[in-house]
Amino acid sequence: MLDYALIQEAAQRIKGRLHKSALINAHHFSEKLHLPLYLKCENLQRTGSFKIRGALNFMTSQPPEALAGGVVTASAGNHAQGVAFAAQLLAVPAIIYMPESTPPQKVFSTREYGAEVVLAGRNFDEACSAALGAARDRGALFVHAFDDELIMAGQGTIGLELLTQLPDIANVLIPIGGGGLISGIATAIKKTNPQVRIIGVEAAAAPSMLLSLKKGEVTTVPLHASLADGIAIKTVGQRTFPVVQALVDEVVMVGEEEIAQAIVALLERAKLMVEGAGAVGLAALMAGKVKRLEGKTVVLLSGGNIDVKTIATVVERGLVAAGRYLKLKVELEDIPGALACLLSAVAQTRANISIITHDRRARSLPIGKTEVLLEVETRGVDHIEEVIKYLSSQGYQLEVTR
Amino acid sequence: MLDYALIQEAAQRIKGRLHKSALINAHHFSEKLHLPLYLKCENLQRTGSFKIRGALNFMTSQPPEALAGGVVTASAGNHAQGVAFAAQLLAVPAIIYMPESTPPQKVFSTREYGAEVVLAGRNFDEACSAALGAARDRGALFVHAFDDELIMAGQGTIGLELLTQLPDIANVLIPIGGGGLISGIATAIKKTNPQVRIIGVEAAAAPSMLLSLKKGEVTTVPLHASLADGIAIKTVGQRTFPVVQALVDEVVMVGEEEIAQAIVALLERAKLMVEGAGAVGLAALMAGKVKRLEGKTVVLLSGGNIDVKTIATVVERGLVAAGRYLKLKVELEDIPGALACLLSAVAQTRANISIITHDRRARSLPIGKTEVLLEVETRGVDHIEEVIKYLSSQGYQLEVTR
Repeated sequence: MLDYALIQEAAQRIKGRLHKSALINAHHFSEKLHLPLYLKCENLQRTGSFKIRGALNFMTSQPPEALAGGVVTASAGNHAQGVAFAAQLLAVPAIIYMPESTPPQKVFSTREYGAEVVLAGRNFDEACSAALGAARDRGALFVHAFDDELIMAGQGTIGLELLTQLPDIANVLIPIGGGGLISGIATAIKKTNPQVRIIGVEAAAAPSMLLSLKKGEVTTVPLHASLADGIAIKTVGQRTFPVVQALVDEVVMVGEEEIAQAIVALLERAKLMVEGAGAVGLAALMAGKVKRLEGKTVVLLSGGNIDVKTIATVVERGLVAAGRYLKLKVELEDIPGALACLLSAVAQTRANISIITHDRRARSLPIGKTEVLLEVETRGVDHIEEVIKYLSSQGYQLEVTR
Repeated sequence: MLDYALIQEAAQRIKGRLHKSALINAHHFSEKLHLPLYLKCENLQRTGSFKIRGALNFMTSQPPEALAGGVVTASAGNHAQGVAFAAQLLAVPAIIYMPESTPPQKVFSTREYGAEVVLAGRNFDEACSAALGAARDRGALFVHAFDDELIMAGQGTIGLELLTQLPDIANVLIPIGGGGLISGIATAIKKTNPQVRIIGVEAAAAPSMLLSLKKGEVTTVPLHASLADGIAIKTVGQRTFPVVQALVDEVVMVGEEEIAQAIVALLERAKLMVEGAGAVGLAALMAGKVKRLEGKTVVLLSGGNIDVKTIATVVERGLVAAGRYLKLKVELEDIPGALACLLSAVAQTRANISIITHDRRARSLPIGKTEVLLEVETRGVDHIEEVIKYLSSQGYQLEVTR
């Protein structure tokens, strides 16, 4: 089990080097969810995620000779930037192994922190083997992403901050990947106030902690692509698992559409850019996954490193999921005036047309028929139902597309 | 001239009702710009912008009988939400006039604060006439968006906050629309510390303050569409102008591409969603528009109310402007293998292809020729030059498109 004293020491070690991240009173969400809600903004932390806390604590805890050969890790995500930046702060050389398929922008931003990036292997496991081999060969220190007490203790400093920022905290929602973040925070908080309810949130695409808890032992799950790639992990830690088993009150899962909606809601309402893994806590609340919540509730936004180029896709997905956006394929008689009639019918529903694609040559239709693709702006799921019902009542054949 | 005491009173009036917005140490930008840089986050303010400060101060300064008939204003932007929310806090009825063309989402979010929204007129001026008429007819109080001392004093409370958050502040960059925000802040800061350099930033699409300063009197400019629609204003205030003339050290302008780049940089690096008008300060610094800057510099992010649906467009524009994204039209011989050769040439440059559109039927080309549209991911403007130079050296006819 993780020792509370390690977390206190971690807080001393990282002090002044990292932000005490802001805790924001989220009025809009409080009103919508009927719950006093606060956002702990680790997306505003240096390097854009909490990972720097663990990495910096790990490195500053080592005797100088242990760091003499530099540090090595494998990661295509926030841990890469955390290790790179911690190494830069301590003037220690760092080598980061990333799978060959890693997007150039991630390579670039890790190099910006002064680390050497080596592209190796077709996937994470292969990159990791290469990193472990390199650490052995060079006498460098390998930095694990979560399954290490010093890493867990570093992440736990968030718990100490929360207790000072919101002493009467009642619930905390925390993303779970390998379990380093939640085991640290749970240890920090439960020691001082065992009444605080600690809720873990996993992506349904990789519920490795939930399955492990159910089986009573660390269990590997198959991996699916997820918007929450930062927490989509096959196997949780051997050191983190017993802490979660002992201290976490419950673990819930959220789906991809729920994550997309939470990302959009955070952008639109909180003006915060949060990555998929960081948005699962709010997603769980918005989707009603946590029952009987009362009192001041903190949602931990663990990171903000989402590729800006994918924002457009995520936003569209989130808007569709929130019923703010409807794509329809409508069959029309191929006669003059048919399109005008359809558009009048749409106007009746007060939905705003964003895009029309009308292709009279589409081949799959019987002669005398044509079709129109409509993208309309709607006010929510009820409004969508209204639009569909009204157009159907007017005799239109429709198909809702995504 | 605006009385400093009015700002102190405003701070007392709004205390506890609004956020003292966070001042964030922007490490990434500090390093890039070689300047200790801080972001004052009014995008995280209630209603998503500073406008609530002025609106709330204006209303709480009125005797009860003045508010008995409710309040009226005209705005399609942040002022609408500011007035609506201030009225809700004080349980005063509010009617907001918006032009008929206002996007439904803006209408919706203003109604969420309990205001009545009336769509009237083809543009802002017509909506404003309707609002003034309604205020007269109903005996309601009209709330001006900027040209009122109580509004200016409310916005000035940001200046008082900055002086406590960063006592050794050297420079502040502030967006200018009608001038209410900058005149309030300049009055608050110069009274305490006249050494602080106050820099106003306008959109080049509507440089009404710059032109007015040049002519020495309030001067109307023609209006062009801008990403910074919140500050694209034809005529600055009669009350704000003399304050700006007396207290603002300089005013600079930024173009649309510069604004788009700043919005993207804030999303990507600061994890903050900032609207165009709110991003002009950072845009000015990134574009090198302010000379001889030294010491702690605050960029005021005035608001974050950007339509999520337009983010995709803005992000693409920003990435193109930053050289992170290149669109090319390339002419090819219409023979088998020609496309494969081109793609190998692109691969040589290490640019990543995102999208290929190959239309062999494009009619504008001579027989025997065909063309390809390529969208490639690049590492910056130097890399773009490299790609173009290399492909040209291989004999390709290219055209860079946007």
